[in-house]
Amino acid sequence: MTRTNDSDANSNHSIESMTDTNDDSERDPLFARIPRRDFMKAGVATGAMGSLAGCTDLLSGNDSTSLEDVKSDVKPGELDDYYAFLGAGQSGEIRVYGIPSMRQLMRIPVFQTDSASGYGYDNRTQEMLEDAGGYTWGDAHHPRVSQTDNDYDGRWAFVNDKANGRMARIDLKYFETDAIVDVPNQQGTHGACCLLPDTKYVFGVGELRVPMPNDGRDLDDPDAYTSVLAAIDPETMNVEWEVSVDGNMDNADSGKDGRWFFATGYNSEEGVNESEMTKSDTDWVKAFDIPAIEEAVEAGNYTEVGGVPVVDGTRNSSLNEGDRPIVRYVDVSKSPHGISVTPDGAYAIASGKLDPTATVIDIEALAEANNPNDAIVGRPRLGMGPLHTAYDGRGHAYTTLFIDSQVVKWDIEAAVEAKAESTDPVIEKIDVHYNPGHLIAAESYTANPQGDWLISLNKLSKDRFLPVGPMHPENDQLIYIGDDEEGMTLVKDTPSYAEPHDASIVSAEKLDPAKVYDPEDYDEEFVSNDTNEIIREDGRVHVKTHAIRNRFGYETVTVTEGDEVTFTVTNIEEVADILHSLAIPEYDVNIKLAPQETREVTFTADEPGVYWMYCAFFCSALHMEMRSRLVVEPAE
Amino acid sequence: MTRTNDSDANSNHSIESMTDTNDDSERDPLFARIPRRDFMKAGVATGAMGSLAGCTDLLSGNDSTSLEDVKSDVKPGELDDYYAFLGAGQSGEIRVYGIPSMRQLMRIPVFQTDSASGYGYDNRTQEMLEDAGGYTWGDAHHPRVSQTDNDYDGRWAFVNDKANGRMARIDLKYFETDAIVDVPNQQGTHGACCLLPDTKYVFGVGELRVPMPNDGRDLDDPDAYTSVLAAIDPETMNVEWEVSVDGNMDNADSGKDGRWFFATGYNSEEGVNESEMTKSDTDWVKAFDIPAIEEAVEAGNYTEVGGVPVVDGTRNSSLNEGDRPIVRYVDVSKSPHGISVTPDGAYAIASGKLDPTATVIDIEALAEANNPNDAIVGRPRLGMGPLHTAYDGRGHAYTTLFIDSQVVKWDIEAAVEAKAESTDPVIEKIDVHYNPGHLIAAESYTANPQGDWLISLNKLSKDRFLPVGPMHPENDQLIYIGDDEEGMTLVKDTPSYAEPHDASIVSAEKLDPAKVYDPEDYDEEFVSNDTNEIIREDGRVHVKTHAIRNRFGYETVTVTEGDEVTFTVTNIEEVADILHSLAIPEYDVNIKLAPQETREVTFTADEPGVYWMYCAFFCSALHMEMRSRLVVEPAE
Repeated sequence: MTRTNDSDANSNHSIESMTDTNDDSERDPLFARIPRRDFMKAGVATGAMGSLAGCTDLLSGNDSTSLEDVKSDVKPGELDDYYAFLGAGQSGEIRVYGIPSMRQLMRIPVFQTDSASGYGYDNRTQEMLEDAGGYTWGDAHHPRVSQTDNDYDGRWAFVNDKANGRMARIDLKYFETDAIVDVPNQQGTHGACCLLPDTKYVFGVGELRVPMPNDGRDLDDPDAYTSVLAAIDPETMNVEWEVSVDGNMDNADSGKDGRWFFATGYNSEEGVNESEMTKSDTDWVKAFDIPAIEEAVEAGNYTEVGGVPVVDGTRNSSLNEGDRPIVRYVDVSKSPHGISVTPDGAYAIASGKLDPTATVIDIEALAEANNPNDAIVGRPRLGMGPLHTAYDGRGHAYTTLFIDSQVVKWDIEAAVEAKAESTDPVIEKIDVHYNPGHLIAAESYTANPQGDWLISLNKLSKDRFLPVGPMHPENDQLIYIGDDEEGMTLVKDTPSYAEPHDASIVSAEKLDPAKVYDPEDYDEEFVSNDTNEIIREDGRVHVKTHAIRNRFGYETVTVTEGDEVTFTVTNIEEVADILHSLAIPEYDVNIKLAPQETREVTFTADEPGVYWMYCAFFCSALHMEMRSRLVVEPAE
Repeated sequence: MTRTNDSDANSNHSIESMTDTNDDSERDPLFARIPRRDFMKAGVATGAMGSLAGCTDLLSGNDSTSLEDVKSDVKPGELDDYYAFLGAGQSGEIRVYGIPSMRQLMRIPVFQTDSASGYGYDNRTQEMLEDAGGYTWGDAHHPRVSQTDNDYDGRWAFVNDKANGRMARIDLKYFETDAIVDVPNQQGTHGACCLLPDTKYVFGVGELRVPMPNDGRDLDDPDAYTSVLAAIDPETMNVEWEVSVDGNMDNADSGKDGRWFFATGYNSEEGVNESEMTKSDTDWVKAFDIPAIEEAVEAGNYTEVGGVPVVDGTRNSSLNEGDRPIVRYVDVSKSPHGISVTPDGAYAIASGKLDPTATVIDIEALAEANNPNDAIVGRPRLGMGPLHTAYDGRGHAYTTLFIDSQVVKWDIEAAVEAKAESTDPVIEKIDVHYNPGHLIAAESYTANPQGDWLISLNKLSKDRFLPVGPMHPENDQLIYIGDDEEGMTLVKDTPSYAEPHDASIVSAEKLDPAKVYDPEDYDEEFVSNDTNEIIREDGRVHVKTHAIRNRFGYETVTVTEGDEVTFTVTNIEEVADILHSLAIPEYDVNIKLAPQETREVTFTADEPGVYWMYCAFFCSALHMEMRSRLVVEPAE
């Protein structure tokens, strides 16, 4: 399902309206377009830059609110207002924070095994990881939560693996990874973004250019290397099609109306070392025209590689000529890094990284301009090392400055007003500690950011925490952005384990996780009940049993050395938060069993002896006594 | 080195002084012995029980301090006062919190692999895990920090693996696991405690009774099963000797003067199912007389099993008869759980678990009594499900009540005064949320607890946090215990990933971790400098190189399909907090490189193609460009 601008109430601006903003009745309530002179009436900012640009909140739909009037301290027993999902980099996992407490509510293992949750220990998750390449780690960067009508729908989160070219899906009913796809023709999947408004695709954005297929051909011919954008069906996790491009890509974001998808990329030079990669003064934002690509696929204009239709989206492709090129290459300052689309869908804003500016691209203009560069409508000069940009829904953008160790707040329309490179749009800067990568504001990736909280994901913490050896924690800082008069306020430092890259913040009421497993989610014969069964056949022993406070179904299970043993175990508790596990000493087994959950594990009983199987979750006063014997008799 | 009571200034009490406490001049400054009538003068407690027992702080060396007068909120940029080391159960790791912020400062992987820190990915840690049994997980329960003269010395932390019978050592210079020993003859190492005052041994306490050796013999003869206490040298991590006992063991603690070591145990019945294990009304505390055991080992009174001298410490052993039995079996109420020694070394206090009392054992009396049960001097009735006890250094004990979901504060000397089972010693109870296991107070395991902060490690969180699926977080609650007038105050709820069991809290100034690796800690030839070297020999390729912002030593490394490739890489940065890694896509490699750190990884280049090796730590503005090609040429 693809929506057009016409049907999208949040995209009712036009190029013309950009210069005709005196009529209040035409303002988009989500993203007030206010002429420069009105900024002055709305109050003067108190930011570090002493800029003349001011607050737009008094004229927009969302009022700003002082920090005293909001909950910033979450007392014992109180609940947080938001979930934050953080892609925790080379740890391979997603972390879930509560906002504003910044407490880590949960870890969700994705690309690594995890004994606490039994992830990679039971047969199903073990097979899922094996089928996805058998890697023991991944580099989880960009968690994005599925949306319907440009708002979070609570179904899934997705996250990329930059190390091994994969995309994973997390089921938000159970907060568990339920699918991983190894993306063909892609090494280093960087971005992981849903096509909005309705998550028609999840895009894997290819960073590292490699031969295609990467099977030993073209090793010394970097010109023949390619990176691709991969469109993945979120229901089936099937890779539907790919588009090959010039240069590489890194970060990405979707327009709000289903037509455009944007990716930055460094290395338009297609070099293979740093000096070659940074030679040119410009690189590109690639704007993918999704309906045009779908038409090309439909028309058979592709090559199949690795089982996937690959459409040629390089500049020289015939598909990139004429009235409706499938990929538009917009020149931006060199090595741009982050890109994000404003909540109203009007602009895509790319950060300069090695250049102190951001580039504001007008998305409607892009569709109409003969030269894509004509769609560039603003060039705010923000500071050193601009990387990523988030939004508050009141017309402000917040951009991390990696080198300056700051977050800069600036006015989007003021940047468009200024057109040329200018520091005028800058409202305020706040120091962060230190060297921020991504930042994220509450619901910034939707059409309706909440405008209260922002997290700056800082790469270095240096001296902000007690020393813990040469590997420092990172520092995720919580900043209140809800008060345009007072400006940004740093509220909390949060040490974090390596290495949160990006995050999504979702209002608590938009998720409805299950507290107990639903037996309907299993095949009926898979679930054990409180009767036990041991099936022995040809050197295989299948034990179907259950766990409940304070026992497993069998006191003793006797097998013979060399048997292939399968345990299928159901936790038959019906009360939330009463977990069991089946841990088997010296057999490297630990499967987690939440209430009504069934898991299965298979292993070879290759060492004779007595092994006390136990429950690793402290489940009752008789928890220690909850153990059964696995007796492995020596083979004759 | 073993110290005797005579040389220990903290143990200058005697059985006689217990009943002669009117003379203030005889009071131990660390543990004031105050007669019952003085409690009344010191103020009446305001606890939930309305007990008449009161505060002893006004008469002891440590004054109590109101919560307003201490730092309880750690603001951005402020440092914590304490480190807490938590044994994080079936996750296999140690977690480091800052106290009082309750922020997680670091994870230290111990029994599992961890891609963020490269633990289990470089050759040395991979071999260490392989040599320790090759398991991919462990169940890390009881972290204890090494002491000298009954105070933390900042050298090591130790933690047990309950799943696989192992003990690990964490080097607190680098906050890294540097040794793991697979303890022979032990399945389910439960306790992990240093022999005090000077960490002469680390004790692995055997929980699960199994045949010895567990090689297929005695499978159906539970009477022949055995559990052992294992004494491990903390420097060499060699298992020096073991003692076999009747029944099993679980928690343990050391006396303060090098003579006694105490372990609780359930299942004196030596049953193999729950009803057999809980039949008897009593179980034992086992008190190990360490010098007596050392004498037995010295005299050759042992059997060697699995390469370790095993001394017979069962009740029927000749070594347990006569004047100086090596193990004393003290009868306590059934299935006791925690045991801990008071800061002055006077008492070992065992919690009843299935019985509402704790048992107070007088340690000096134990040495002198003919019947070990004569050393029992108190039996406070605390509440339902008493599990573990911590101390504030002002004469109070704090015990978790698993079933009541409370922490009870009680007066140790009042319990001794009452002698018989009594609720009189109870001062106050506070609700915790919910079902606490261990609790720990600041420096409770030393001779001088700080008396300000206590953490209750609660097993269930139920509704205390936003829902995150069927696997709930646990809840580590911070309680202020520094004000005896106001009583205990709950300060923070902290969600935690499964499953912190026990913890040690250490004052910040007692640790001095390194921020940069010391090249002196390596063999000189192991460390690469900024010259590169590739050694090719017989299908092996050894690349010695380095990492620095923003490059590895080689832009391209070309090998042939089938080569065994070794990378030895040094991070030659000298600045703290600038980490690199060597990540190799699709080869499942990621080795972490902190400043001046060298790591080595070996793999077989079995898939031809181009692989962009990159740095997974965001290290500079040109971090994305920090990548080199591994070119694997097809074999002929």
